[in-house]
Amino acid sequence: MIKTDILIIGAGPTGLFTVFEAGLLKLKCHLIDALPQAGGQCTELYPKKPIYDIPAYPEILAGDLTVKLLEQCKQFEPGFTLGERAETLEKQEDGTFIVTTNKGTKHHAPVVAIAGGLGSFEPRKPLIDNLADYEDKGVEYMVKDPELYRNKRVVIAGGGDSALDWSIFLSNVASQVTLIHRRNEFRGHLDSVEQVQQLKNEGKINLITPAEVTNIYGDKRVAGVEVTVKDEAPIKVDCDHFIPLFGLSPKLGPIADWGFEIEKNAIKVNNCLDYQTNIPGVFAIGDVNTYPGKLKLILCGFHEATLMCQSAYQIINPGKRYVLKYTTVAGVDGFDGTRKEAPKPVIKAFD
Amino acid sequence: MIKTDILIIGAGPTGLFTVFEAGLLKLKCHLIDALPQAGGQCTELYPKKPIYDIPAYPEILAGDLTVKLLEQCKQFEPGFTLGERAETLEKQEDGTFIVTTNKGTKHHAPVVAIAGGLGSFEPRKPLIDNLADYEDKGVEYMVKDPELYRNKRVVIAGGGDSALDWSIFLSNVASQVTLIHRRNEFRGHLDSVEQVQQLKNEGKINLITPAEVTNIYGDKRVAGVEVTVKDEAPIKVDCDHFIPLFGLSPKLGPIADWGFEIEKNAIKVNNCLDYQTNIPGVFAIGDVNTYPGKLKLILCGFHEATLMCQSAYQIINPGKRYVLKYTTVAGVDGFDGTRKEAPKPVIKAFD
Ligand SMILES: Cc1cc2nc3c(=O)[nH]c(=O)nc-3n(C[C@H](O)[C@H](O)[C@H](O)COP(=O)(O)OP(=O)(O)OC[C@H]3O[C@@H](n4cnc5c(N)ncnc54)[C@H](O)[C@@H]3O)c2cc1C
Ligand SMILES: Cc1cc2nc3c(=O)[nH]c(=O)nc-3n(C[C@H](O)[C@H](O)[C@H](O)COP(=O)(O)OP(=O)(O)OC[C@H]3O[C@@H](n4cnc5c(N)ncnc54)[C@H](O)[C@@H]3O)c2cc1C
Repeated sequence: MIKTDILIIGAGPTGLFTVFEAGLLKLKCHLIDALPQAGGQCTELYPKKPIYDIPAYPEILAGDLTVKLLEQCKQFEPGFTLGERAETLEKQEDGTFIVTTNKGTKHHAPVVAIAGGLGSFEPRKPLIDNLADYEDKGVEYMVKDPELYRNKRVVIAGGGDSALDWSIFLSNVASQVTLIHRRNEFRGHLDSVEQVQQLKNEGKINLITPAEVTNIYGDKRVAGVEVTVKDEAPIKVDCDHFIPLFGLSPKLGPIADWGFEIEKNAIKVNNCLDYQTNIPGVFAIGDVNTYPGKLKLILCGFHEATLMCQSAYQIINPGKRYVLKYTTVAGVDGFDGTRKEAPKPVIKAFD
Repeated sequence: MIKTDILIIGAGPTGLFTVFEAGLLKLKCHLIDALPQAGGQCTELYPKKPIYDIPAYPEILAGDLTVKLLEQCKQFEPGFTLGERAETLEKQEDGTFIVTTNKGTKHHAPVVAIAGGLGSFEPRKPLIDNLADYEDKGVEYMVKDPELYRNKRVVIAGGGDSALDWSIFLSNVASQVTLIHRRNEFRGHLDSVEQVQQLKNEGKINLITPAEVTNIYGDKRVAGVEVTVKDEAPIKVDCDHFIPLFGLSPKLGPIADWGFEIEKNAIKVNNCLDYQTNIPGVFAIGDVNTYPGKLKLILCGFHEATLMCQSAYQIINPGKRYVLKYTTVAGVDGFDGTRKEAPKPVIKAFD
């Protein structure tokens, strides 16, 4: 059982900033995310695109925003359960909560912050009859740990940035990378496209287009895939892993069944105070919540997270008075023993 | 008469970010501030100190935050009335507002956003009997335009960063700089203290300590000041300007008399929707407002400004529907003709 002060469901920008604000109040956080990495929509959907409305950043790439948020909260040592979907929320008799994932991992906390964005990111799957038989037996829909593919033969399917970028990355890890796409044209960032061309020229990526994986074979585990090029007879490509990367799309999913008031596919919260849901002790912040005037913007999640942490503090430290201190004035004490503080002024008489 | 869409009182971080968010909605802004420069508390009180809780900035100097916010909103060409205090707010019959400053400058707008922070920054003045007689006749409490002092003899009084930093700056502009402080010890950032020592050694700054200006002389304008060193008889220092820099402190001031509901020295707003005050069409955002759970933090002002702009849009464009567009997706069109947008993905078949 993982224990923490604030259990955060969703490691997007809102969840990450919650770790920082909670840390200022000396509260520990643990995050659960269905994705294998932090960053939510920013990392999964548009890491290389610029955002222009993050306050005081005239321009920042979504991927860099995630890096900065991770750096800012690092000192507060968040725990992570990645690649797992929070499936159930149970309120205990003592008012605390147990959240269990689809893999059975249990988390226990007095406060739950749902920062689930548009929902848990779930893969779009290709239509292959026996696909389900090989899930987690050589078929993966996202790359959780690239080391899994060390010296293995890998087939990747897809025509967008994920397919291109993972082909590039794994060409240095796997013993063989085959990239399959149903069209000749790929769609991605210029530098990704150029790198794939180069790796293809060097023979480090095998390209099969226009083609589709139509069947999987192998005893118990993936031993290869059948690839159909146009109307010709399928050809066999032996491999250890088949990774279809057709994008991940968010589904509110299990959260919708936890007893919240749902409106417009989002959780209604008390925006007049602290973004608490109708279940006391459970808050909803960022894109996942709704209230009159709600805007699904990153900067709004930051504010909601900050106000929420004040109420979380009261729940966790009943009766204790909290006095806001400016970070500039009080400095920041990390749970890792680091301390940040403003340099002290010099007091000096001139010679 | 200066005309604009949103008239913002206060050019602190909240006011500056309002310009950006309003610009995204194609609304023009004009800012009034009692200070000669933008940045509010950040610039006036702690420009060289680090802030740690600006989202996605693990650390940023308050002065740099201001620079970034100015850069971000520049494309929306805000107007500025600086060094003037907004004195009166009059609602017109057509529902629009006229705001007049202490210098008589009039501003006209359908929406007013009060982003006045802890109030208008007012100088702390030394106790000198005839001080008031020379105000704006050679006595200034802040440096609005350094060019005023070109080739002039200047006496600066004070022992903190402003006194040190302006002495350094003006040593290159004025024909003579005399720095007077009632103690021998100055208190400031290390680099400022070191530079003053250097300039003193080079004879570019005259230092008189421990000493106080006790009288001003001159016919109609400042011709010099009398300086008392301990219990000795005052000495005369001829000069064209006397600039006492004893710090500026914020006073809610005239705003308190405009008919708002005031609580804890701040303006009560409708935080359940759009941070509007009890006067429709007038909003209060950032440190200047109060509501249940309010935190006087910079990041909260950013959120409040953003939500407020949506309601401002409705007031200015009645009945028009506004659909939120992500900056990443729609790009940003500046009023200055610039356009920012994400690079388009490349669509390419490999050779
Ligand atoms: C193309 C595009 C451009 C955009 N441009 C901008 C812009 O310019 N400015 C702006 O402010 N915003 C923009 N946005 C929106 C912005 O990305 C979101 O507002 C932001 O990501 C919301 O952050 P969040 O942390 O609330 O949620 P998310 O980023 O959606 O993260 C939520 C996370 O929770 C996880 N999760 C949900 N449910 C579960 C569960 N049951 N178990 C485990 N994990 C779960 C998801 O997997 C996800 O990783 C854009 C979005 C897109 C798609
Ligand atoms: C030492 C110190 C450290 C701080 N550290 C942090 C920190 O770490 N994190 C954080 O989030 N916050 C911090 N703060 C608080 C932060 O600076 C404020 O929250 C922020 O400046 C508020 O921004 P604002 O734009 O709402 O108001 P302000 O910055 O106060 O700006 C308001 C402006 O309005 C002007 N004004 C007011 N009335 C009038 C009028 N009638 N006419 C003309 N002009 C007027 C004022 O002159 C002023 O320039 C700190 C503050 C101090 C003093």
